[in-house]
Amino acid sequence: MPKHPTRKKDEALRDLLRLPPGEVVDLAGYDARATPGAPGGKQAGLADTARTGRRLARLQERLWAAGTAGDRRRVLLVLQGMDTSGKGGTVKHVIGQLNPTGCRIKAFKAPTEEERRHDFLWRVRRALPEPGEIGIFDRSHYEDVLIARVRHLARPAEIGSRYGLIHDFERSLAEDGVTLVKCFLHVSPEEQKRRLLRRLDRPDKRWKFDPADIDERALWPAYQEAYELALARCSAPYAPWYLVPADRRWYRNWAISRLLLEHLRELDPRYPEGEFDVAECRERLLKQT
Amino acid sequence: MPKHPTRKKDEALRDLLRLPPGEVVDLAGYDARATPGAPGGKQAGLADTARTGRRLARLQERLWAAGTAGDRRRVLLVLQGMDTSGKGGTVKHVIGQLNPTGCRIKAFKAPTEEERRHDFLWRVRRALPEPGEIGIFDRSHYEDVLIARVRHLARPAEIGSRYGLIHDFERSLAEDGVTLVKCFLHVSPEEQKRRLLRRLDRPDKRWKFDPADIDERALWPAYQEAYELALARCSAPYAPWYLVPADRRWYRNWAISRLLLEHLRELDPRYPEGEFDVAECRERLLKQT
Repeated sequence: MPKHPTRKKDEALRDLLRLPPGEVVDLAGYDARATPGAPGGKQAGLADTARTGRRLARLQERLWAAGTAGDRRRVLLVLQGMDTSGKGGTVKHVIGQLNPTGCRIKAFKAPTEEERRHDFLWRVRRALPEPGEIGIFDRSHYEDVLIARVRHLARPAEIGSRYGLIHDFERSLAEDGVTLVKCFLHVSPEEQKRRLLRRLDRPDKRWKFDPADIDERALWPAYQEAYELALARCSAPYAPWYLVPADRRWYRNWAISRLLLEHLRELDPRYPEGEFDVAECRERLLKQT
Repeated sequence: MPKHPTRKKDEALRDLLRLPPGEVVDLAGYDARATPGAPGGKQAGLADTARTGRRLARLQERLWAAGTAGDRRRVLLVLQGMDTSGKGGTVKHVIGQLNPTGCRIKAFKAPTEEERRHDFLWRVRRALPEPGEIGIFDRSHYEDVLIARVRHLARPAEIGSRYGLIHDFERSLAEDGVTLVKCFLHVSPEEQKRRLLRRLDRPDKRWKFDPADIDERALWPAYQEAYELALARCSAPYAPWYLVPADRRWYRNWAISRLLLEHLRELDPRYPEGEFDVAECRERLLKQT
């Protein structure tokens, strides 16, 4: 029973996938195999993703070019989701369509000793995209209200205060020209089991497997609850969450490409004019041997 | 009069493009439009680059996977060349074929105030690839014996000492598991003029133009001399320079893809076995709902 309504022609995908800010989230109500808004089945989706990727790359170049001329705007894609939900695959297949020079990718692991000596947003601030860049967070500051909550890595009162701090942090980013695109990759427990088994069975996938993933998996309900809280509490008009059904890889790649495209189109970055006298430069250049 | 000999079937491209360590370099003797070792003309080159890119991506995944299991090996691609020689284009088209997660790209600009307070290798050390990664330097520590020499940015004695320091630095990298692939993109002054004019004439390219490029261009002979010195003095069996003719973009992309492939094949990274009991993990997983 997918809650996602059907997408009308030319309707923005983000209007379909956005979780309404402030509303209670019930993840069980969303079908992880759904393909809301898709242009058809897998083949049509793959073709449209490739087309979308080329458009993305053109807009990315403009964003970057504008950044060289003082435009402070940038994009930050935040990827969250359970193990195997496809955060790494999104970087490979969606971000892989862009010019790597303009991408700043950061995968957040368990905090190091140095990182733990600072507040939880310290390491996040250091990984933000510069003007003109597209930043990608594979996990993020949300881990500090997800695994931290499930695994009791901080006192409840401290975790409770983090939702508000994340709110303020993201508002300050938005005010500073950062377009936030926060995607929750929604995978079903059945699909996760299939993917974990595949990692075990295929020698070229085994390196991705960690026995600790099985223990995490046992905490599935607690994680879903932590996600539901985070998605509901840390949503705002300038920083909404998108729920991306992620049991089908082609749909996940299509949807995230499309969400990025819609945001970049709205930004509509322009090639800068150049502050120099083109005719004079041309003449000087032609005079040289 | 290209000095590059013809490549025999299955002969390594690196044997063709390598500048012999210790020998005097005369850049004027190399044809920047040459296509040594290419599998044919432009169409054949583009097709082979795409094929090579897929192979590269597979080897890159193995390198990364091995890195997660303690293999310290990594690759560092150093790109040097005059303005418009195609350093940025190489990142876009060659590195763009790889998984961006495993790439660490650093474009070196004029040093910041903080960077100038340290020795010239300080900022370079901070940008090195981690085990399993492919690092890409768009410009590098070589600027400190190139523009620094041409523009007299340091005392001659200091610049003179840097060649030896670079030697020692690169040897220490090689001993630490870094495979250095240093490419000099050899562009002709005629082609540079064409490319600069194109940047001026096309509104979507103008943002890449800087009037200061014309002044730099006037110093062409001094730069060539500085390059000849650097290429001859900072070459070693474990860190040779490759001279890549760069007037034809398709050839440049093909040759650098190919050089990376040859080095990665030699490294022959392997998927790690995994240190856990696969059968036991499988059983535990299947017991879960």
